[in-house]
Amino acid sequence: MSKKFVITIGRQFGSGGREIGYKVAEKLGVKCYDKELISVAAKDSDLCEQIFAEHDEAPTKSFLYSLVMDTYSMGYSTIGGVNMPIGHKVFLAQFDAIKNLADQESCVIVGRCADYALEEREDVLKVFIYADIDSKIKRVMDKIPEVKKISEAKDLINKTDKKRASYYNCYTSKKWGDAVSYDLCINSAMLGIDETANVIVDIMKKRLEK
Amino acid sequence: MSKKFVITIGRQFGSGGREIGYKVAEKLGVKCYDKELISVAAKDSDLCEQIFAEHDEAPTKSFLYSLVMDTYSMGYSTIGGVNMPIGHKVFLAQFDAIKNLADQESCVIVGRCADYALEEREDVLKVFIYADIDSKIKRVMDKIPEVKKISEAKDLINKTDKKRASYYNCYTSKKWGDAVSYDLCINSAMLGIDETANVIVDIMKKRLEK
Repeated sequence: MSKKFVITIGRQFGSGGREIGYKVAEKLGVKCYDKELISVAAKDSDLCEQIFAEHDEAPTKSFLYSLVMDTYSMGYSTIGGVNMPIGHKVFLAQFDAIKNLADQESCVIVGRCADYALEEREDVLKVFIYADIDSKIKRVMDKIPEVKKISEAKDLINKTDKKRASYYNCYTSKKWGDAVSYDLCINSAMLGIDETANVIVDIMKKRLEK
Repeated sequence: MSKKFVITIGRQFGSGGREIGYKVAEKLGVKCYDKELISVAAKDSDLCEQIFAEHDEAPTKSFLYSLVMDTYSMGYSTIGGVNMPIGHKVFLAQFDAIKNLADQESCVIVGRCADYALEEREDVLKVFIYADIDSKIKRVMDKIPEVKKISEAKDLINKTDKKRASYYNCYTSKKWGDAVSYDLCINSAMLGIDETANVIVDIMKKRLEK
């Protein structure tokens, strides 16, 4: 496709949003950024380097990665026995990385408040993927063998989405899961993963034709 | 189309949701129920007749119509100097009418918490239509010549949607405008009225093929 575009995907845990993101990217011939995005952010951003400089650490890439992942999921991280709120700096680093990516190439970005980071751009299709609780429980139990009980799956879904909502609501001026925060919200259980990806691809193509 | 289906459309004021509903119905060769639904409810429901019986009124059809419209928009209505909360009974009458319609024929139903009334059915596609504030203001000023100022349009949009949200949140266990309350939420300003209708038609067809 000749015109540039970015598709951002927010998603409920267990809704298949990440898989849909990868399918959409594949169908449109572009890259999907999910965890890789964090590596990009960590490598490219001065802010992220600053975090470690301040704490006199010389982390390896894998340490950096796990640190950022901890921060993303917990909001706080412990380094050398010191509990520090580095989430904000990591968020800003990711924010920069997302903006750089959107400047450079057409792509799909899953999570990371990418819709908010790219709020000012006109070439962005902001998508939110969700599903009914039974479908999400089934998916979580199919995909994560460690989750053996329905109650465990439900608990994991609720806790993860609570964190995602807090993260989004804290860092953006919008509300996670509110229809108006996005251009398109779709229940992935309605048509399944592949057809949901097709709907998003069709809408993106229609937008590019406009 | 041989299989039965119902499409419910919730919508922000000024988003073109009603027009989209009529277009979707036309494209699928079925009826769209909006205000007509109220007539059906009023005609068919014992509950509605009961309202008037209780108040010893013998309303004409047009009086009934304006009464129900008042109730829908205000929550209360004054008859013969008595202020009475008849909204609940009217809601139940509409609820029954919506269920009857869904039993009888494939159709599109705009507003009236139809998604909630038909929550138990499997053949329902629940849609929510919204748009950015600038697009809604433009639409309201184009469609309602009495609205001459941007501030008036904004005020009308905010007040109408506040009423719609209150009505929905009061009568259902869901939240108006929350993505998860619906199967599909779409920003009508993204593709315009006709293409948005096409997206809904395509999704309904895909569901019927499943």
